[in-house]
Amino acid sequence: MSSTAGLILTCKAAVAWEAGKPLIIQDVEVAPPQAMEVRIKIKYTSLCRTDLYFWESKGQTPLFPRIFGHEAAGVVESVGEGVSDLEVGDHVLPVFTGECGDCRHCRSDVSNMCDLLRINPVRGVMLADGQSRFSINGEPVNHFLGTSTFSEYTVVHSGCVAKINPLAPLDKVCILSCGVSTGLGATLNVAKPERGSSVAVFGLGAVGLAAAEGARIAGASRIIGVDRSSKRFEEAKKFGVTDFVNTSEHDRPIQEVIAEMTNGGVDRSVECTGNIDNMISAFECVHDGWGVAVLVGVPSKDAVFMTKPINVLNERTLKGTFFGNYKPRTDLPSVVDMYMNKQLELEKFITHRIPFSEINKAFEYMVKGEGLRCIISMED
Amino acid sequence: MSSTAGLILTCKAAVAWEAGKPLIIQDVEVAPPQAMEVRIKIKYTSLCRTDLYFWESKGQTPLFPRIFGHEAAGVVESVGEGVSDLEVGDHVLPVFTGECGDCRHCRSDVSNMCDLLRINPVRGVMLADGQSRFSINGEPVNHFLGTSTFSEYTVVHSGCVAKINPLAPLDKVCILSCGVSTGLGATLNVAKPERGSSVAVFGLGAVGLAAAEGARIAGASRIIGVDRSSKRFEEAKKFGVTDFVNTSEHDRPIQEVIAEMTNGGVDRSVECTGNIDNMISAFECVHDGWGVAVLVGVPSKDAVFMTKPINVLNERTLKGTFFGNYKPRTDLPSVVDMYMNKQLELEKFITHRIPFSEINKAFEYMVKGEGLRCIISMED
Ligand SMILES: NC(=O)c1ccc[n+]([C@@H]2O[C@H](COP(=O)([O-])OP(=O)(O)OC[C@H]3O[C@@H](n4cnc5c(N)ncnc54)[C@H](O)[C@@H]3O)[C@@H](O)[C@H]2O)c1
Ligand SMILES: NC(=O)c1ccc[n+]([C@@H]2O[C@H](COP(=O)([O-])OP(=O)(O)OC[C@H]3O[C@@H](n4cnc5c(N)ncnc54)[C@H](O)[C@@H]3O)[C@@H](O)[C@H]2O)c1
Ligand SMILES: [Zn+2]
Ligand SMILES: [Zn+2]
Ligand SMILES: [Zn+2]
Ligand SMILES: [Zn+2]
Repeated sequence: MSSTAGLILTCKAAVAWEAGKPLIIQDVEVAPPQAMEVRIKIKYTSLCRTDLYFWESKGQTPLFPRIFGHEAAGVVESVGEGVSDLEVGDHVLPVFTGECGDCRHCRSDVSNMCDLLRINPVRGVMLADGQSRFSINGEPVNHFLGTSTFSEYTVVHSGCVAKINPLAPLDKVCILSCGVSTGLGATLNVAKPERGSSVAVFGLGAVGLAAAEGARIAGASRIIGVDRSSKRFEEAKKFGVTDFVNTSEHDRPIQEVIAEMTNGGVDRSVECTGNIDNMISAFECVHDGWGVAVLVGVPSKDAVFMTKPINVLNERTLKGTFFGNYKPRTDLPSVVDMYMNKQLELEKFITHRIPFSEINKAFEYMVKGEGLRCIISMED
Repeated sequence: MSSTAGLILTCKAAVAWEAGKPLIIQDVEVAPPQAMEVRIKIKYTSLCRTDLYFWESKGQTPLFPRIFGHEAAGVVESVGEGVSDLEVGDHVLPVFTGECGDCRHCRSDVSNMCDLLRINPVRGVMLADGQSRFSINGEPVNHFLGTSTFSEYTVVHSGCVAKINPLAPLDKVCILSCGVSTGLGATLNVAKPERGSSVAVFGLGAVGLAAAEGARIAGASRIIGVDRSSKRFEEAKKFGVTDFVNTSEHDRPIQEVIAEMTNGGVDRSVECTGNIDNMISAFECVHDGWGVAVLVGVPSKDAVFMTKPINVLNERTLKGTFFGNYKPRTDLPSVVDMYMNKQLELEKFITHRIPFSEINKAFEYMVKGEGLRCIISMED
């Protein structure tokens, strides 16, 4: 038991009060964890595009004040009733989606879309009691994705917490709680390229480059990076990307360009832009007979995926994935171990580091499209 | 060596002279097989919808006179130069698609879309020399799908010939050279339902019922048959179909009807109508997280497959298959053995039997939608 267990803690959090406005670092009260919840002391967090998207709040119903953040690593401070697989001091990654262990998805070998703890960006409260654990002067502050890691302490459902190797450096593995695992798993768990195969990656942001990293680890011999911004290509070289296609330099469909480069199509493709034309190109650029395309990017609400059925009949496969098909509690510890074994390189994703007090800079970098991941240190 | 090897043979064939007009049984000359070809004495043949489609010749460039037929079984009469894996007397199934053994598709574990011998319905000649092996009074008659089994003797590329167990009754296993293997393989090789799972089959013709037979063999506990004609449902019961959905009795999308029947969707679906709305329903009716939909039916040229990307992102898989992903030479012998081992039931597909002289009746049955397969005996 930690000495603070059961108490309301007062700590610093970065609170978003209004869409698109800088976060304000201020004191918040964090209630103790309820049944099946844990309270985590966050050590490092990073900014993902999903935080930015809901902070900008374009097209969604705004939910403010709110504490954003969902890529992070920390240490368990205290556990609620009934939590048996986590204890005080455990090193953990909080995850925006969970694993109850009991539903049809959790019992399936392939799905990670837990019925109970599946991502829910519009909910600002905890599942157990429909209440927030955060407050400022008695007024509740909304949670985000059940994680709210832009706070020194946060409360998370224990089904959304992965216990990891205590030797893993938290300032690096924190990025495994969202974007990097999403792209990596899309390739390793879903596209599954064979050694020596060709892989096209659409979108060279953190997710796409993690997909490329997966292709490199799987032993792909050719990795074709597709992006509309040539700025991305320099960075991508560090990730084993061998060929580049700039979508803005072609007026014919990109699938034709890729088919020409590869004698009929790539073996695998992974779509990480969220743009619908890229999704269609990603599907149609895989080789008939054996090609597999995997969609990762999240499209706009009105987008419609369209293709001639013959493209399917000719033995192509189309798949989609959410969080790289990783089950957070079962699978993330082994992804951390991949890093510890030097199989997976995380350093190259980390392009910026800032103290918590400068968290708004992370938003600026992302808005400008500068770099990949910015690590925010809670203790500096 | 047979006594007729190397000679031009004169035999009876059913020749189509005009689109949609009855075939005429008459004498044709059949030239000896060239390099890598074999001449086969056809014992039994049956009619498949693809014959009917090209015979009706709606929307394609007509190619007449032509000898149709591609579902059949026979015995090798003679072999051309270089044929080493087939000999006189072998029991065989000629197949409309082939396996050269050498191209990237043939070397792939999953594809059966051989670059050299892939189906080509518009070619009326043999690959080797661009000539026909059939003639009437010196005038060439077109081949169909490289098989032309509506003839007592036919010439086929050896890469399109499966050598089968000589004990197998040819009047039954002949239907394995197209429709039944297509549906069966779509389920067993591509959809791969687990024991105890639910499978929806769209279209209860021979192909769809073979898909249902595959689901029964795989141990599916619930097989939902979807068709617009309730006449099909009686027959379907023999194939283990447990539930029926008549598309014409619902005005909401069939995927919604199926999701309601199955608590969120089926585990697998196989589309065997070729109708684009059914293709979309077949995809959207599989459960998120793990559902796999397989397209088999051949759509009209202008059809476009459309779905919201979220249906893909939610971990559904869309696949297409051609000839049930069976490699004809490598895999068909084991499908024949499944019948010999009483795993696969073929008798229930055979609803009519006629002598060769009455072949036009088989066309009438199919046009009326009567029964499943009509076996045409060449020797009666
Ligand atoms: N499925 C999941 O579980 C999951 C998790 C995290 C992120 N995502 C999604 O993955 C996608 C990528 O995330 P990210 O953090 O790497 O984003 P990012 O914005 O950092 O990178 C996207 C890249 O795609 C490129 N791009 C965008 N539109 C393009 C277009 N029309 N043509 C060519 N290139 C284009 C951009 O130049 C950029 O390099 C997003 O859609 C995000 O929502 C999905
Ligand atoms: N991919 C391949 O290798 C391959 C091989 C053979 C056949 N096929 C295709 O498989 C399909 C089925 O072949 P078959 O021989 O069983 O055909 P069939 O005509 O005997 O059976 C089709 C069934 O689908 C039903 N149907 C048709 N349109 C429908 C609609 N709009 N809604 C509901 N039900 C509908 C019909 O009532 C019928 O019962 C065809 O499209 C054929 O071209 C594909
Ligand atoms: Zn669950
Ligand atoms: Zn994220
Ligand atoms: Zn081949
Ligand atoms: Zn056929």
